Amino acid sequence: MKKILNNPDDFVDEVIEGILKAHSDDLRTVGDDLRELVRKDAPVKNKVAIATGGGSGHLPVFLGYVGKGMLDGVAIGDVFASPSAQQMYNITRAIDGGKGVLYLYGNYGGDCMNFDMAKEMAEMDDIRVETVLVTDDVASAPKGEEGKRRGVAGLVTAYKIAGAKADEGADLDEVVAVTQKALANTRTIGVALSPCTIPSVGKPTFEISDTEMEIGMGIHGEPGIHRGPLKAADEIAETILAAILEDSPCSRGDEVTVLVNGLGATPLEELYIIYRKTARILADKGVKIYRRLIGEFATSMEMAGLSVTLMKLDDELKRLFDRPADTPFFSQANIR
Amino acid sequence: MKKILNNPDDFVDEVIEGILKAHSDDLRTVGDDLRELVRKDAPVKNKVAIATGGGSGHLPVFLGYVGKGMLDGVAIGDVFASPSAQQMYNITRAIDGGKGVLYLYGNYGGDCMNFDMAKEMAEMDDIRVETVLVTDDVASAPKGEEGKRRGVAGLVTAYKIAGAKADEGADLDEVVAVTQKALANTRTIGVALSPCTIPSVGKPTFEISDTEMEIGMGIHGEPGIHRGPLKAADEIAETILAAILEDSPCSRGDEVTVLVNGLGATPLEELYIIYRKTARILADKGVKIYRRLIGEFATSMEMAGLSVTLMKLDDELKRLFDRPADTPFFSQANIR
Repeated sequence: MKKILNNPDDFVDEVIEGILKAHSDDLRTVGDDLRELVRKDAPVKNKVAIATGGGSGHLPVFLGYVGKGMLDGVAIGDVFASPSAQQMYNITRAIDGGKGVLYLYGNYGGDCMNFDMAKEMAEMDDIRVETVLVTDDVASAPKGEEGKRRGVAGLVTAYKIAGAKADEGADLDEVVAVTQKALANTRTIGVALSPCTIPSVGKPTFEISDTEMEIGMGIHGEPGIHRGPLKAADEIAETILAAILEDSPCSRGDEVTVLVNGLGATPLEELYIIYRKTARILADKGVKIYRRLIGEFATSMEMAGLSVTLMKLDDELKRLFDRPADTPFFSQANIR
Repeated sequence: MKKILNNPDDFVDEVIEGILKAHSDDLRTVGDDLRELVRKDAPVKNKVAIATGGGSGHLPVFLGYVGKGMLDGVAIGDVFASPSAQQMYNITRAIDGGKGVLYLYGNYGGDCMNFDMAKEMAEMDDIRVETVLVTDDVASAPKGEEGKRRGVAGLVTAYKIAGAKADEGADLDEVVAVTQKALANTRTIGVALSPCTIPSVGKPTFEISDTEMEIGMGIHGEPGIHRGPLKAADEIAETILAAILEDSPCSRGDEVTVLVNGLGATPLEELYIIYRKTARILADKGVKIYRRLIGEFATSMEMAGLSVTLMKLDDELKRLFDRPADTPFFSQANIR
């Protein structure tokens, strides 16, 4: 394990301490717990609040999207582990501005169980909570079983849409509806070239040879749909786009956002080589790229690999995608 | 070599093709050469133009800083290789808005030779050109021989200052003077944990064992000042800060920007662990962090490691650091 850290058991708390030292103008803890973070100005009165949460090790996911035009609070777990229901409940209380709270997070067992418990606790305080699960990973369950899919980089575009709608002053039902619409139009597939190591474990999450790649691998190393020889970039892009478009077809004239996301160790140069081919494939099909995000938006520490996310747009989603956003890790300037 | 690419010989051009597909609203080529890029709106009349250039493989350096409030044009070489004098001359002609051109780039032999030739060519066209070399890498030459030092992540803060001054309407001499002042106050040291591979070469640029790190290694793998066992993050931060502050002392009450830069494969989490200790060390010395940049700003493809850059500020540098900037790879929102 070649990592820049101190005691592996202190990894998560030291990361958050660094973030709080850097970004105390934007973020604060709810109480004494470093792992309950909210916008500095929370609760924002008369705005639907949005909470997320999940394991550490995915920066900027999750906490990086707390801020103006995006999320209001986040509960942070150990590396690749869920935060507790109590932590989620605590941030819920801290961010509710009187219009209710949306729980928006990835579809993982521990997170679902704990967020559901937190929802029950919040409702006993008369805080209305609704849940939307992010299930964008096409590779994690077949068509017809979309509800079983994992949430990966589609988290980011979902945060953008939900955050913008809440910022416009919509009520909770409207924020839920537009987020569900966005997610129904969102598909992601990733490819992994190398594993990562959980600091407190000290050995890689999986093994893969120097000549192999795995299509559809999850961001914690969950099995994908195909392991085989490392292919050329253009073939990788073709495989990814074919799987996405088979699952959620685009027609000539459709407009999409494209998110090319690095998993941690993959150079930006390689992301642009994938974007190049992605843009060509979509142009050949008559699909217009309305906006693009290219960089590291949802990572797995030092995992090498990338994912591509497509979200089909209508006029409402385009308007929301273009509203201002500003967090310590993400701003509207990242969207081109 | 585990990379996502097609033919290694096409690597640089395909990266640029991807960038042009993504960012044609912001960037354009001068002629048919993909490796001569300028702002879409170049030349900007009555503004000092700023040109840079250097080898590929360092995204967002170099081309990522071409845009509003930053640079006007860039000449792009092969991976870790200088562009030609002709390419530099061509962008110089394309960006000159009548107030002259600043060449601002890292102190590497090939770049210096070619930029100096381009300067002579431009001057025959009556375009006034001045040069400022970035020499921020403390580890690359001892005190007293600062002019021999290499340019690394300090490029980014130098671009910010020079670009802001030019944007304010300053003349060429004023832009040169403030950039020199900024660089006189700028120091960087890096630490490398793993090498990277030039695609067309196909083997790593250097070897380092699984338990070692090298302090002061250059961004192309140039030798540093110490190779030894991988230390804890806090010790690494102490070593880096001690070397920087010994070379360019800070006094109680001084204000600085801190740039914690990932070299490519190092997770954002680890950068924040280094920032945490850096902030503590500076706080202990009574030095105030005015602004910070934490992320990947000057990379070496998939090299693991990071660098820390300090720039001491005065009122003028603070004002310039806070002026608007917006490029496809960098915006003022990156500065917190």
